[in-house]
Amino acid sequence: MAQLSSSVVNLIDQFSKLPGIGRKSAERLTYHVLRVNKAEALELADSIRAVRENVCYCKSCFNLSETEVCSICLDPKRDQTTLCVVEQPRDLMALEQANSFRGQYHVLLGRIAPLEGIGPENLTIKQLIERVHGGTFKEVIMATNPTVEGDGTALHISNAVADFDVKVTRLARGITTGSILEFTNKEILADALVDRQEF
Amino acid sequence: MAQLSSSVVNLIDQFSKLPGIGRKSAERLTYHVLRVNKAEALELADSIRAVRENVCYCKSCFNLSETEVCSICLDPKRDQTTLCVVEQPRDLMALEQANSFRGQYHVLLGRIAPLEGIGPENLTIKQLIERVHGGTFKEVIMATNPTVEGDGTALHISNAVADFDVKVTRLARGITTGSILEFTNKEILADALVDRQEF
Repeated sequence: MAQLSSSVVNLIDQFSKLPGIGRKSAERLTYHVLRVNKAEALELADSIRAVRENVCYCKSCFNLSETEVCSICLDPKRDQTTLCVVEQPRDLMALEQANSFRGQYHVLLGRIAPLEGIGPENLTIKQLIERVHGGTFKEVIMATNPTVEGDGTALHISNAVADFDVKVTRLARGITTGSILEFTNKEILADALVDRQEF
Repeated sequence: MAQLSSSVVNLIDQFSKLPGIGRKSAERLTYHVLRVNKAEALELADSIRAVRENVCYCKSCFNLSETEVCSICLDPKRDQTTLCVVEQPRDLMALEQANSFRGQYHVLLGRIAPLEGIGPENLTIKQLIERVHGGTFKEVIMATNPTVEGDGTALHISNAVADFDVKVTRLARGITTGSILEFTNKEILADALVDRQEF
């Protein structure tokens, strides 16, 4: 059987490592790269390189940034009294896109996951505690994912900041707008009943 | 609303251009590139660059190759009397993986598609005719896709080589191994009945 050339095999391997890309998709992407004009293919390569060379973490909130301190931390118009704690930069972006929060953020860069060997010391929890300790925050909003690990991380942090004079809250849980009650699972309905609101 | 840094937005845009990758997947891939270690991210960038810089088309059969003439064309152990015509290099690879053909290939690099403005002159049909004219081939196997355009392309080529002393065949059509008759569509069953074989 004839072999594909080594560059092609190598690129298929590289694409296969990406999340959600299987072998067949990786082959398809590789043939796409071979088919498009050279400038477009090289632009993709350069963008990957640029993102790793230009983007770093904000030294205050650990959001992705091309400057030492990110634009959110530097924005004087944002509320300096509320701090929203998220797991990943992409969670921060999702919240920003919802356009209802104008405070500060802190990105943990993960969640406590003992089974994967990720403890509090692997995250930016120490820096978070320093910020809460030295800062002007009146409220810390836990916006970790609503999973066992996310909830565990939120609990750990709320214990760690319990001694400071801040209110700790978490995102509301309940039924999701646009969903169908019949197909909503029992944990969600239980949350929605417990936290029911006055009409 | 805070903006993502321009390198990040740019990479999301680049990933979005790939086939089968939507905006959300592109964001996910970008965050993956930002999360993995730098060496791995740069390796992906370099692989894309390498594939475009090292890989070209074999000047004889138009398969992808890192050398002027590909390894299949150079292999003296392969049958020099049968020529299999495919649309794309990936079709060639699929046939090679089936491991039942040991002859030569010719890659058209597309199919005749008048609606997309792709005529015979945009493909490698001229070079194919030259190969058949000057070559030692006794049989040309049309392995274009079993679609209207693939069949049209095969018909065009079979007419073009009709004057030469070669047998022109096409891949067998029928029911697919492992399929279920009940769910097989009528065109496939019609093909299977017409080309039925002695038991």
